[in-house]
Amino acid sequence: MSKVLVIMGSKSDFDVAAKGIAVLKKFGVDYEVVVSSAHRTPERTKQLVQNSDAGVFIAIAGLSAALPGVVASFTTKPVIGVPVKGDLNYDALLSVVQMPPGIPVAAVGLNRADNAATLAVEILSLSDPSLAAKLLEDRKAQAEKVEKDSETVSADAMKV
Amino acid sequence: MSKVLVIMGSKSDFDVAAKGIAVLKKFGVDYEVVVSSAHRTPERTKQLVQNSDAGVFIAIAGLSAALPGVVASFTTKPVIGVPVKGDLNYDALLSVVQMPPGIPVAAVGLNRADNAATLAVEILSLSDPSLAAKLLEDRKAQAEKVEKDSETVSADAMKV
Amino acid sequence: MSKVLVIMGSKSDFDVAAKGIAVLKKFGVDYEVVVSSAHRTPERTKQLVQNSDAGVFIAIAGLSAALPGVVASFTTKPVIGVPVKGDLNYDALLSVVQMPPGIPVAAVGLNRADNAATLAVEILSLSDPSLAAKLLEDRKAQAEKVEKDSETVSADAMKV
Amino acid sequence: MSKVLVIMGSKSDFDVAAKGIAVLKKFGVDYEVVVSSAHRTPERTKQLVQNSDAGVFIAIAGLSAALPGVVASFTTKPVIGVPVKGDLNYDALLSVVQMPPGIPVAAVGLNRADNAATLAVEILSLSDPSLAAKLLEDRKAQAEKVEKDSETVSADAMKV
Amino acid sequence: MSKVLVIMGSKSDFDVAAKGIAVLKKFGVDYEVVVSSAHRTPERTKQLVQNSDAGVFIAIAGLSAALPGVVASFTTKPVIGVPVKGDLNYDALLSVVQMPPGIPVAAVGLNRADNAATLAVEILSLSDPSLAAKLLEDRKAQAEKVEKDSETVSADAMKV
Amino acid sequence: MSKVLVIMGSKSDFDVAAKGIAVLKKFGVDYEVVVSSAHRTPERTKQLVQNSDAGVFIAIAGLSAALPGVVASFTTKPVIGVPVKGDLNYDALLSVVQMPPGIPVAAVGLNRADNAATLAVEILSLSDPSLAAKLLEDRKAQAEKVEKDSETVSADAMKV
Amino acid sequence: MSKVLVIMGSKSDFDVAAKGIAVLKKFGVDYEVVVSSAHRTPERTKQLVQNSDAGVFIAIAGLSAALPGVVASFTTKPVIGVPVKGDLNYDALLSVVQMPPGIPVAAVGLNRADNAATLAVEILSLSDPSLAAKLLEDRKAQAEKVEKDSETVSADAMKV
Amino acid sequence: MSKVLVIMGSKSDFDVAAKGIAVLKKFGVDYEVVVSSAHRTPERTKQLVQNSDAGVFIAIAGLSAALPGVVASFTTKPVIGVPVKGDLNYDALLSVVQMPPGIPVAAVGLNRADNAATLAVEILSLSDPSLAAKLLEDRKAQAEKVEKDSETVSADAMKV
Repeated sequence: MSKVLVIMGSKSDFDVAAKGIAVLKKFGVDYEVVVSSAHRTPERTKQLVQNSDAGVFIAIAGLSAALPGVVASFTTKPVIGVPVKGDLNYDALLSVVQMPPGIPVAAVGLNRADNAATLAVEILSLSDPSLAAKLLEDRKAQAEKVEKDSETVSADAMKV
Repeated sequence: MSKVLVIMGSKSDFDVAAKGIAVLKKFGVDYEVVVSSAHRTPERTKQLVQNSDAGVFIAIAGLSAALPGVVASFTTKPVIGVPVKGDLNYDALLSVVQMPPGIPVAAVGLNRADNAATLAVEILSLSDPSLAAKLLEDRKAQAEKVEKDSETVSADAMKV
Repeated sequence: MSKVLVIMGSKSDFDVAAKGIAVLKKFGVDYEVVVSSAHRTPERTKQLVQNSDAGVFIAIAGLSAALPGVVASFTTKPVIGVPVKGDLNYDALLSVVQMPPGIPVAAVGLNRADNAATLAVEILSLSDPSLAAKLLEDRKAQAEKVEKDSETVSADAMKV
Repeated sequence: MSKVLVIMGSKSDFDVAAKGIAVLKKFGVDYEVVVSSAHRTPERTKQLVQNSDAGVFIAIAGLSAALPGVVASFTTKPVIGVPVKGDLNYDALLSVVQMPPGIPVAAVGLNRADNAATLAVEILSLSDPSLAAKLLEDRKAQAEKVEKDSETVSADAMKV
Repeated sequence: MSKVLVIMGSKSDFDVAAKGIAVLKKFGVDYEVVVSSAHRTPERTKQLVQNSDAGVFIAIAGLSAALPGVVASFTTKPVIGVPVKGDLNYDALLSVVQMPPGIPVAAVGLNRADNAATLAVEILSLSDPSLAAKLLEDRKAQAEKVEKDSETVSADAMKV
Repeated sequence: MSKVLVIMGSKSDFDVAAKGIAVLKKFGVDYEVVVSSAHRTPERTKQLVQNSDAGVFIAIAGLSAALPGVVASFTTKPVIGVPVKGDLNYDALLSVVQMPPGIPVAAVGLNRADNAATLAVEILSLSDPSLAAKLLEDRKAQAEKVEKDSETVSADAMKV
Repeated sequence: MSKVLVIMGSKSDFDVAAKGIAVLKKFGVDYEVVVSSAHRTPERTKQLVQNSDAGVFIAIAGLSAALPGVVASFTTKPVIGVPVKGDLNYDALLSVVQMPPGIPVAAVGLNRADNAATLAVEILSLSDPSLAAKLLEDRKAQAEKVEKDSETVSADAMKV
Repeated sequence: MSKVLVIMGSKSDFDVAAKGIAVLKKFGVDYEVVVSSAHRTPERTKQLVQNSDAGVFIAIAGLSAALPGVVASFTTKPVIGVPVKGDLNYDALLSVVQMPPGIPVAAVGLNRADNAATLAVEILSLSDPSLAAKLLEDRKAQAEKVEKDSETVSADAMKV
C-alpha cells in the first residue's frame, strides 16, 4: 500500500504537478497521475478516489480549489492539498487550508507539489524503513548543498 | 417549477439562512431548507440536488465553502452561493466566487442570504409576471423607506 | 425575451467580454454588446437598462466597478457582475460582490465573463428547454475533455 | 456657495456622519444632511446632486460603496467619499478610492467623516478668508492639545 | 510507534490544543503534550523532537509561528502545523503553510487542532487497521449528525 | 491663487506624475513640479510647502508614502495624495488614505495622478467659473468618447 | 548615552507604550516618554528628536503611522517603530516597515512595544556589558517559564 | 566588535543581499556573508550565530521566513530581518515582523537589505563616532541628490 494518487483539477496544473512527480520518482514511490475536476467530473473524482488503493492522495487545484476537500470527502486516508497560484493567490490557498472540522486536508504552500510529495513520502515512511532512510539521506544532501552554496556566496560577496 | 432549495453546509449557518428564508416567504415563493455538507455528506448532497425539482439553488457555507460549487457540479440550474463570515472572511468569499470556467456560481456578499433570495426571485420572475410585479413594488417600498429615513436623519442632524 | 445585454464600463474591458460573448454565441442566445460607464455616462447607462428588453444583464467593470450595481439599480431582472483584474484585484471583486441588502448582483470570478455568460444561459434555460438540453450537452463535453486530458497527463507523467 | 451636502447611503451610517456634522458646525459652515442610496434611490440621488447648490459634497457609504462615485458622476464640484467600516473593511475603502480616470473622488479614511468635513472646510476656505483663519486656529488648538497630553503621559509613564 | 507529540509554542495556545487532544483521546491514540518555543527554548525544542519516538508531530503556534517549521527541521516524520488566530490572522497561517522546498509541514486551518489530530489519526491508520475502522465510523457519525441537524433546521425554517 | 504645487517623493515617480501634469496643462492651470522627500529632505519639504502660494497641493509617493501627510502637516490648504504602485500596493494606498483625525488628505487611486489633477481643477473651479465651464466640457467629451467606443465595440462583438 | 526616547503619536497609544516602558524599567534603562504627532505637531517632533541625547528612539503610532519615519528623518540614531492595531491593522504595519531606501526604521510587530524596548536594550547592550548580562538572564528566565508552563500544560492535558 | 554577519536562507536571496553588502562596503564596516537555512541546516545556523563575534546580524529569507527569528533565538545581539518578495509577499513580511514577546527582530521592508545594512551601521555608530559622521554625510548626500533630481524633474515637467 505505498502508492500515491496524484489528482490535478485541470491539465493546466501539470507544470506544478511535475515538481511533485519528480520527487516521488526520486524516492522510488509508486504513483499514478490523473486529471479529475471537483466541478466538471464529480462522479469520476469519487470513483477514482474510492477505487484507488493509494495510501496517500495529492490533490492539486487552483481558483476555488475544491478538489482536495472533495477528495477528502471520499476517503479517510491522508489527503494533501496543493493550491495553485493564480491572479488572486489567496483563493486557492484559503480553500485548501480552511477545511471544516472533521474532514482534514494537509495543505502545503502555493505551487508546492514538491513538498506535497515529500510529505507523502514522510507519511509512507512510517511503515517503510527504507523510505525513512532515504529521507534522512535527502536531508543530509540538502544540508550539504546549503554549505556548498554558502562557499559560493561568501566568495561572490567579496566582489559586490 | 418555482421552488427554491436552500442548502446550508452546517446547522450553524441557520441565522444567516433565516434572512433569506424570510425574503422567500415575503415573495410567496415555495422553498425547502436542508442541511447537507459538501465534505461530510457528499452523497447526500448529490442526491438532494439531482432529485430536487427546484428551479434555483441557494447554497450557504463558511470556511473553505465548497458547497455552492459542489451543488453546481450536479445541476445546470442557477446556483447562488452565500459565503458565511468567519475568522478570515476572505476564505468563504473567494471559494464561492472564484469558480473555474464552465461551472458558474452566482456569488452574493458575505452573509447576504437576503440578497441570494431576492436574486432567486428575480430569476424566477422571468417566467412569472406576478413575481416581477412584486419585485417592482419591493423596490418602490425600499425607495420610500430611504426617503422616510432621510427625513429622520435630516432632523437628527440638526441636534448634533 | 431571451436576450442578454452585455455592458462594459470601458472599451478596454473588451478582451474580458469577448470570452463571454463567445459562450453566448455557442449557445445561440441573442445578445447585444455596449459600452456605458457608471461614472462617465450615468444617464446613458440608465436609458440603456430601462429601454432594454433583455432578460439578463451582464455588467463588466474594473477598479471601483460600480457598473453592475448601478445597472441593478435600474432593473429587477437578474444582473450578473464581472470584476475585471487590475493592479489591486480585490477592488473590483469586492465592489461587485458586496452589494447592500435589497439590490442583488450575481458576482462571478475575476475576468470570468465566460461563467457570467453560462450563468445567463442557465437562467434563461429555466423557461427554454432547448437551452437546458444544450447545457447538459456542454457539461458532458466538459467531462469528456477532462477524461481525454487525463490520458495525456498520465502519459506525460511517465516522462517526468 | 459655501454649503456642504452630506449624503449617506443608509440611515445606519448616521453615527459615522455625526462626527463630520459636528466639525462643519464647529467651523460655522452651512450644510444639509440627507439619506439617498446609489442603488435603492438612483433617481433621487441624481436629483439631490443636480439640484443642490452646495460647493462640496460628502458621500458616506459602506459595503460596495458606490455612492461617492455616483454622486461624482452628476457634478463637477469636489466630492469627498467616506468609506464605512464593515465586516471586510477593504470593500468600501477600495470602492471609494479606486475611481476610474476622469471622475475623481477625494477619499478619506475608514469612518473618517470628521476629516471629510475638515477637507471640505479647507476647500471652501480657498475663497473664504474667515474659514482659512479658523483652520489655522484649529491647527494651533490641536498642537496645544498634543503638548498637554504629553505632560499627562510623561507623568503617567513614571507610574508604570 | 503510534504516539503523537503535541507541541504548543505558548501556554496561551492551550485552548486551541485542547480541541485536538480531545480528538486523540476519542480515537484512543497515545499522545504527549508539551510547551516549547521555537524562539524562547530552541535547544529544548530540538531535544524534545529528536528524543521523541512519536510517529507524528502536531505543532501549534501563533504570530510568526516558526514552531512547526522548526520541529520539521529536526525530524523526517510528518509534522502537522496549526496556526493560531491573532490580530492579523494571516501571519501564523502563512508562516505555517509557506514552507520552503524540502522541509514540508502539513498545514491545517486557523485554530483547527481538531483537524490536525484527525489528520494524525489518518496517517497512523495506514499501519493500524483498528484506527482505520474507527475513522470510517467517525465519518458515518458525522453524516448522521448532518441528517439529524437537517431535520431540525427544516422544521425551524417553517417558523421563520 | 490658482497654482498647484506637485511634489513627488522621488524622481522615479515622474511617470505617474506626468499623467497629472498633462491634465493640469489641458485645463490651463498654473503649476510647479518639484521633488522633495518626507524622509530624505524633511526641512526642504516644509520650506517648499510653507513658502508656496499654491491653492492646492498634489503629493505623490510610494512605499510608506508619508509625503502627502507631511505636506498636510504644514498647510491648511487642500492636499491631494497619490499612492504609487509597488510590490505590495496596499502600503502606499493605506498610508495616504488612513490619515488621523484633524489633518485630512484627499486620497485618489493607485497611480491616479490624472484624477488628482482633475480633483485639483474641481477645487479651483469653485472660485473660477472658466474652469467650471471647462470641467463640464470635459465631462461631455468623456461621454461622447464612451458612445463612440460603444459603436466600435458593438461592431467588434459581431466578429467574436 | 543610554537613554531611550519613547514618542507616541497620540495619548491613546499609552496602553501600548506602557508595555514597552515596563521593559525599559525592568532593565534599568533611562528613558523619557512624550506625545508628539507627525501631523499635528511636526515642528515639535523635529525639536524633540534633534534636541534629544537619546541613543535609541521608539516611535509608536497607528493609522497612517508616519511618526517612526518622520523621527528617522531627523536623526541617524536607530529608530524603532511600533505599529498600533486599528480597524485595518495593515495600515500602520505597512507604513512603519516599508520605509524607502536610505532612511531605515526597525519595525516590530503590531502593538509590540515590549519587543521595541527589548530591541532597544539589545542595541544599547553592545556598549554596556551589564545590559548584555541582564539580557542573557532574561532569556534564561523566559526559557524557565516555558518549562514550568509545560509542566502545567502536560498535567492539564490529562484532564481534557 | 563592529562586524556584521549577513545570513541568507538560500543562495537565491543573493541579489537582495547584494544591495545590503554594497551599503556595508560603502561605510567600511567589516562583514561576513553566509548561507544557512533555518529549516535545512538548523544546527549550522545555531553554530554560526553562537560562534560569531558580530555585533549585529542581518538575516534574509523568503516564504515562511523563519530565519531571522531563529537567529534571534540564539543571540541577544540585535537581529535585523529582511523579508524577500515572493508570490504572496505578505508571508515573509509577516513572519519577520510578527515576533512573539521577548525575542525581538528588527524588520525592514520587502527586499530592503540596503536599509538593513544602514540600520546596522546606525546601531554600530552608537559606539563608533566615525560611523556616526559618515551617516550624517550620507544623509546630506541623499538630500543633495533629491535637490538635483528636483531640478531635472522641474525641467522635464515643462515638456509633458
